[in-house]
Formats: sequence, structure tokens, C-alpha cells
Amino acid sequence: MAQVEFDNQAFRQALGSFTTGVTIITANAPDGTPVGLTANSFNSVSLDPPMVLWSLAKTSLSVAAFSEAEHWNVHVLSQHQQDLSNSFAAKGEDKFSGTKLETGISSAPLIADCSARFQCRNMVTHDGGDHLIFIGEVLGFDHQPLPPLVFQQGQYAMTARKPWEAVNLSSEPTAPECSYNEDLLGYLLGRSHFQMLYRMRKVFDEQALEDSHFFALSVMNIQQKLDLEQLNTHLDYTGHSVSEDDMKFLVSQDLISKVDEESYQLTSSGRETSLHHIAQAKAIEEELIDELGVGDVMALKLLLKRLIHKTDPGLPDLWSTQDKPL
Amino acid sequence: MAQVEFDNQAFRQALGSFTTGVTIITANAPDGTPVGLTANSFNSVSLDPPMVLWSLAKTSLSVAAFSEAEHWNVHVLSQHQQDLSNSFAAKGEDKFSGTKLETGISSAPLIADCSARFQCRNMVTHDGGDHLIFIGEVLGFDHQPLPPLVFQQGQYAMTARKPWEAVNLSSEPTAPECSYNEDLLGYLLGRSHFQMLYRMRKVFDEQALEDSHFFALSVMNIQQKLDLEQLNTHLDYTGHSVSEDDMKFLVSQDLISKVDEESYQLTSSGRETSLHHIAQAKAIEEELIDELGVGDVMALKLLLKRLIHKTDPGLPDLWSTQDKPL
Repeated sequence: MAQVEFDNQAFRQALGSFTTGVTIITANAPDGTPVGLTANSFNSVSLDPPMVLWSLAKTSLSVAAFSEAEHWNVHVLSQHQQDLSNSFAAKGEDKFSGTKLETGISSAPLIADCSARFQCRNMVTHDGGDHLIFIGEVLGFDHQPLPPLVFQQGQYAMTARKPWEAVNLSSEPTAPECSYNEDLLGYLLGRSHFQMLYRMRKVFDEQALEDSHFFALSVMNIQQKLDLEQLNTHLDYTGHSVSEDDMKFLVSQDLISKVDEESYQLTSSGRETSLHHIAQAKAIEEELIDELGVGDVMALKLLLKRLIHKTDPGLPDLWSTQDKPL
Repeated sequence: MAQVEFDNQAFRQALGSFTTGVTIITANAPDGTPVGLTANSFNSVSLDPPMVLWSLAKTSLSVAAFSEAEHWNVHVLSQHQQDLSNSFAAKGEDKFSGTKLETGISSAPLIADCSARFQCRNMVTHDGGDHLIFIGEVLGFDHQPLPPLVFQQGQYAMTARKPWEAVNLSSEPTAPECSYNEDLLGYLLGRSHFQMLYRMRKVFDEQALEDSHFFALSVMNIQQKLDLEQLNTHLDYTGHSVSEDDMKFLVSQDLISKVDEESYQLTSSGRETSLHHIAQAKAIEEELIDELGVGDVMALKLLLKRLIHKTDPGLPDLWSTQDKPL
């Protein structure tokens, strides 16, 4: 790790390694105009008395307003407030239009639906080079269990929390790098998928449905009218396929019916069955959210979507409203 | 969101909503003894001149040393330094024993293998209630592309970075909550798994192997000697199984051989084939690490392991060295 020459861009990048939350800090200008900006330079200082700090560029248009403000509020943003973060990071007059405000201790704007809020009285302002450091006493605060928005290396992020104990699937120590072990991504994806499907399978079993029937009904839930070839085009990447015999079986169960010589659609009973499957999948997901936390499940879904994007072999778009898949 | 009474525990929890990186800050005591502690109260202050700050509890045993130190170093820890974080968060004399140090600008200890480091000259110390705020000028810094350790709500965490553009799998807008859409976790897991397997399948196809054969060979790579029933016990949750005919096929391909009346094992050619599969799976994983970033793939694997833990229907431990699976 070599020392580098001083370089503003590189310094910013190095600072970006330090992960932060994202806050919006608000106050009222002396003329009563609300001001607010996005900052990630917030941090806690003291528990007793309760104190926090943040810093503001001396070139900011809001410097005058904050320098004269007796009170300011810090809003720790949740994952759902990324647009708000962007809008308060930009210059503009109408940042507060459409922003849900609540009544706070002071007249400083208090934004709703944040992960946490700290209502502060400005205690002291220190010089900090090209920034001013504001230190405030916390007069009031609140906190909601909303997954916080995170910033790292110039990008928004979500967190995947690490339990205090290491997560090991096997009772044996992990095998060396070169071999097949529980740390292989492909294994973890397969096992996750199959364990989720295993829970679903209890529902299929009641109706003597196989995995491939479930996949076929799910596709037909979205694409209303398909012939066997089109259906199998959608199933191909799963390694599953359905045959004429499978279709006959599903017709015999009153789950699908023939639209014409070639095409099939779900019957009302088939649609009900498929919706029941989806409801079951959602119930399993809800259970997981209870166990892993809503933020962690959001992060998992984000990462899976990114993986799917990167590994997509060019699958037909299941949700496309075009008549024919590829 | 109701105002809450002032309460230390609740205040800490609310502060915990603000995500931070984790740093170790080091200095030399006047007698030359190295001191160091874990802190997440670090933040950037100024770009020009380059300045950073952090705060230290007045009750800390290191207060005297830091108050007199002309220099201190800030180390932004990487995911691999969680143990170091724990050890520097605890009281103890031997924090530096076994810690790899490098030579820096000052005599303050400079720890190796961090995400970023800032070597600072103390400029000023401000009172901050029950803490002291140290503000330093950055004399030197460096930065490595190591995924940073994160702290949120009293727990370590990893980040899943969000691309600036929303990740959508379909060209159509997402369907309403109640229906089957691309936001369903079960769908995302299935599609991820199948797309990974789809890439692997090119390798199976060369050898006319089916998915179930691949799964069987993978199990036999770990569990050296299995009869058909034991093998299928391991495969059961995948919905796949192998038959006597499958085993005959694999024997005919010189991939497995009979050990005795009942049991099978991999031949040397079968072991080579299975290792080739694993190498292929690792190559796909390496490609993904290049595209998603090493930290994001680490976070994905952590989340999948946690999901597997929570949804495990009681599967036999594949890596158990006991002779017989369940």
C-alpha cells in the first residue's frame, strides 16, 4: 500500500471508503424561508449531554441561513427516501414542495418517514477549513425501524447485516479453496432456490403437481395464451419442459383449457391455483422478512436482480405485452 | 412518529440508524507506547486543506495519550478486519501484538491492509460534552479496493451497492403487489439459480450429463461412498433423483464405479469431471465478482447463507464426516 501524492480526486475516493448514512439537515432562514440540504458528514458526539455534529461547505448557498439559525433538524434517511436525498442534494428553490412535514420542537422543518430524526439547538460552530462544523444539542429525537439509506464510494447502497456469530451451514470446517464447499455461490443459489421451492412443494403435492407444472402455470398466469412451443421457450432456461401429456394432465385437472387448435390458457380454476401458489410464495417471503429483517431482504433482492442482469443469456421477457415471445 | 422522552438507550438506538464505517485510530503516547482504539465517530471535514475529525470519550484510557499526540492515523477497516475491530474495541495491553504495521509519516502506528488510511497532524481539539473532538490535517492517505467494514444498529454489516439506474428485469412496468411479478423473492432466487446452471449446462452437455447427474456427482465428490438411497437422500430437496438406470449410465461413462453390492464411488475420471464442474462454477463466480464487485458478491453469499439457515427443512449435512447421512 504505497503513499500517494496529494490529489483532490484521490482524497475524495479514499474518504468514500468510509461508509455513511445519508441525512437531510433543515433550518429556517431569518426571513422564515425553509432551507435544507443533503449531508453525509453527520456524526454523534456526546451522549450526556446529547450532542451531534455535521459540517457544511462555506461555499454553500445555505451558509448564511444555518449560521444564523438557532435550531436545525437532522433527518437520517430511509431506503425509501433516495429521491428526497437527490432533490435536497441539488440546488433549487422548491425542495420542500411535496415533502411531508410535521410539527417539531422548533420552527425548523421536520420531514416525515425518516429512519431517525434529531431536533437540535445549535451550540457552537467551529471553523473546519473549507467547511463549518456545526455542533448541536439534541432536544428531541425519534426513530423508526425503516432500513436506512447508505452511501459508500459515491454510490447509494443497502446493508446486509452480519450476525455476531459466523454463519456456517456445515458442522465441519470449510473445505479448502480448491474444492466444492458451502462457500461456492452456485451452491448457495441452488440450495436457496430448492429450499424455497421445497416449502412450496407441499402446496403442489396436494394437487399432484410437479415442479414443471408449477412453472408452466406461473408462465401462463402472465402470458395469457400460449402454444406448447412458446410455453417451453419460457421454461427452457430452467431445464424443465412440459410435454403434450403434461398439457393433457393439466386439462384433465381443469387447470388449463384449449383456446384453439394450438393454444392454451388458464381456466378460472387454474388461475385460482396459480394465485394460490403466488400467495404461498409471498407468505414464505413475509416469514423471511420477519426473520432476516426487511432491509436485508431488500438487499438480497437487489443483488439477485443485478446477478440476473449480468448472467441473462437473453431470455424472453415474461412480462412483455408483445404477443409472441422470441 | 411520536416524540419520545429522553432516554440514553433510545438515543443510542436512534444514532445507530446512521450507518458508519469502522475505523481504528492510533497514536503514540509520550512514552512511546502505541495506543489505538476502534471508533465510528470519524468523518471528513474539509477538502482544502484536507481535514478529518473523530471524537473520543473523555473516560477513555487513551485520552491522555491522544491529547498529547502531535499525530494520529485513521484506518478505515475492510471486511477482513472485523477481528481487529473487536480487539481494538476492547480494553487490553496487547492490541498491537500480531498486527501488521508499516512505516508512516509520523511515528504513530500504521496498520496494513485497510480500505483507506489517513495520516494526520492534530490541529485542534474541541470540547464535545462527554467526548473530545479531534480535528486533524491529513498529511498523507492511501486507499485500496477492499470492501469496507460497516456498522449499523449495533451490528457489523456489508453493503450491497445500488446502481444509479433502477434495476428492472422486464421492459414493462412492474405489475401490482397482488400478482406474480419480478419482485417476488422466490422468482428471483429461481431465475438466479437457473441462469447460473444454464451457463454450467454447456459443460454437462459435452458429456451428455443431465442436471441430476451433475448433482449426484457433486454429492459423491464430498461423500465418497454412497448407496443409491443415501445419494437420493442428499438430492431429495432439489426435487431431482437418480435411478438405477442413471447409475448404470454413469458407470458406463466411467464416472462412477461399484464399491460393493450396494455402494458407488467416483472413478478417477469421475472425480476429474466433478472438479472440472466446480472449476467452471468458480470461473462463473469470478466473472460475477468482476462485474458486481467483490463486496457485493460477499454480501450476496452472506444473505443466501442466512436465508438457507432460516429455511433449512433439516437437510443432511453434506460435509459431515460421519459415515451415514440421516
